[in-house]
Amino acid sequence: MLIVGELINSSRKPIAQAIEARDEAFLKDLAVKQVEAGANLVDVNCAVALDREPEVMEWLVGIIQEVVNVPLCIDSPNAAALEAGLARHKGKAMINSITGEKKRLEGTLPLVVKYKPWVVALCMDDAGMPNSAEDRIRVADNLVSALVEAGVPEEDIYLDPLIKPVGVSATAGIEVLEATRALRKKYPKVHVICGLTNISHGLPVRKVLNRAFAVMCVEAGMDAFIVDPLDRHLMSLLVAARALAGQDQNCLQYIKAARAGKLVAE
Amino acid sequence: MLIVGELINSSRKPIAQAIEARDEAFLKDLAVKQVEAGANLVDVNCAVALDREPEVMEWLVGIIQEVVNVPLCIDSPNAAALEAGLARHKGKAMINSITGEKKRLEGTLPLVVKYKPWVVALCMDDAGMPNSAEDRIRVADNLVSALVEAGVPEEDIYLDPLIKPVGVSATAGIEVLEATRALRKKYPKVHVICGLTNISHGLPVRKVLNRAFAVMCVEAGMDAFIVDPLDRHLMSLLVAARALAGQDQNCLQYIKAARAGKLVAE
Repeated sequence: MLIVGELINSSRKPIAQAIEARDEAFLKDLAVKQVEAGANLVDVNCAVALDREPEVMEWLVGIIQEVVNVPLCIDSPNAAALEAGLARHKGKAMINSITGEKKRLEGTLPLVVKYKPWVVALCMDDAGMPNSAEDRIRVADNLVSALVEAGVPEEDIYLDPLIKPVGVSATAGIEVLEATRALRKKYPKVHVICGLTNISHGLPVRKVLNRAFAVMCVEAGMDAFIVDPLDRHLMSLLVAARALAGQDQNCLQYIKAARAGKLVAE
Repeated sequence: MLIVGELINSSRKPIAQAIEARDEAFLKDLAVKQVEAGANLVDVNCAVALDREPEVMEWLVGIIQEVVNVPLCIDSPNAAALEAGLARHKGKAMINSITGEKKRLEGTLPLVVKYKPWVVALCMDDAGMPNSAEDRIRVADNLVSALVEAGVPEEDIYLDPLIKPVGVSATAGIEVLEATRALRKKYPKVHVICGLTNISHGLPVRKVLNRAFAVMCVEAGMDAFIVDPLDRHLMSLLVAARALAGQDQNCLQYIKAARAGKLVAE
C-alpha cells in the first residue's frame, strides 16, 4: 500500500501562509513528520502562487528534497508547474494529475514521456465529473490507452476514481467502490488511488467518515491513498484493513506496526 | 441497523464474578449504560453457572428487565437455559443461538415455535466450523428452510456467518464478507449478524481490527452487530459506514448522531 502525505497543500491556510512567507523550516518539518508517520511520498501543492506557481513549485521541490529521501508527488493542474517541479526533482517523481480532458492530456503527456514519473490520472474528461462507476471506467479506459500508447508502464499508472461528497449524493461512496473493484479486475497492474477527504465535504466530524471510507476502499482493492499520515487512527485502520482484506499474510505487517507502537485504539 | 450490547457475558471475568456474587447493581448498571450508548438489545449470557445456568438465566433476565426497556438477547447453547430465559422474558426476546447441528436444532426449534423470538442462527452444522463462503451459504440454506418451515418469518431470522480469527487464516475476513453479500442477495428479508471480536483473536490492539472489520461488514450488507456499544470509536464508525454504504439518505442519521455528540474522532 502506498501512502502519499497530503499536508503540504496550499489550499490549507497555514501552508498558503508558509509558502507566501517562504517559511522553509515549517514546510520541511511538515515533510519530515509525514515521512516519519509512514508517508511513502510527500505531496507538494502551491496553487496559491497563481501565475508564479512554476517558480514556487521549483523552490518547494528543492527545499523538501533537502530533508526527505522519499519521492515527491508534484501536485498541480498546471502543466508549467508540473514541468518546473519535475525538472527540479531528483529521482523518479509522481505527478498529480492528468485527466482525460483533451487539452490537459495533450499538455501533460509530453512531460510524462520526458520525465517518466508515476502518474495520477483522474477519471474525468471533457464530459465533466463522473456520475457512476461506468463513467469512471469509460474515462479510465481512455486514460490507460493513452498512457500505455505513450510508453507508460501500467505499473506506473495510478487511477483516481474521483470522490464526491456523500452528503450530496448517497451513492457517492458506492460508485467509487464499484469502480475500484472493476478497475482492479480489468487492469491488475494499474493502481487505484484517491484523496479521501472529499467524501466528507460539508459534513461534521469528517475524520470519522474519511477513516471508514478508507477501510472500505482497501477492501475494494484500492492500493494507494493521498491522506493525512499524522492521523494515527486512520493509519491504524489502514494497516488493519489490509490484514482483513487478506493482503497481509499471517498479519505480519499488522503485528510489526503494533510492536512499533504505531497502532492506536484510543 | 441493530446493535446488540455484548458486555453482560460471563466469559468476561468481572461479569462471571458479578453473576457468582449476584451483584444486581453492577449488572443493571452495565445494561443501562449499554442502552444509553445505543444498544437496541442487551445480550445476557451466564454460561459460567454451568448446571445452574437455567435458574441463573431466569434471575438475570428478571433483574435486567427491571431497568431497561429494550429486548434481551438470551445467549446460551443450552436449550434449558434458553427456555428459562424465554419463559421469564417480558415481550419478544432474541435467542442466541441455534445452529444447523441436528441435535441442537431439534432441541431449540420447539422453543422458537412456542416463544416466537428473533433467532440468531449460526452457520455451522454437524460438519463443524465453516471453511468458506460456500460452506456458510449451504448451512444457511438449511437453517432458513427449517426455520421458515417451523413458521418463523424471514424477518425474524438473523444469520451469523461465524467469524474466525484473521491471525489464523488470511481469508477469514473475506469469507465472511463474501457470505454476507451472497446471503443478503439470496434472502433480502433475512438479517445477517455477527459478533465481531473473534476476528482479532490472538492479535494485538484488537479494537482496531474489530472496528475496521465492522466497517467492511456494513458495506457487505450486514445489518446487525453484537458489539461493545461503549466503544465510541466503533459506534461512530458504524454510523459513518451506513452513510457511506448508501443506507442513510442525506446522511440524516449521521448528522443527528454528530449533533448529539455521539461521534468521536479523537
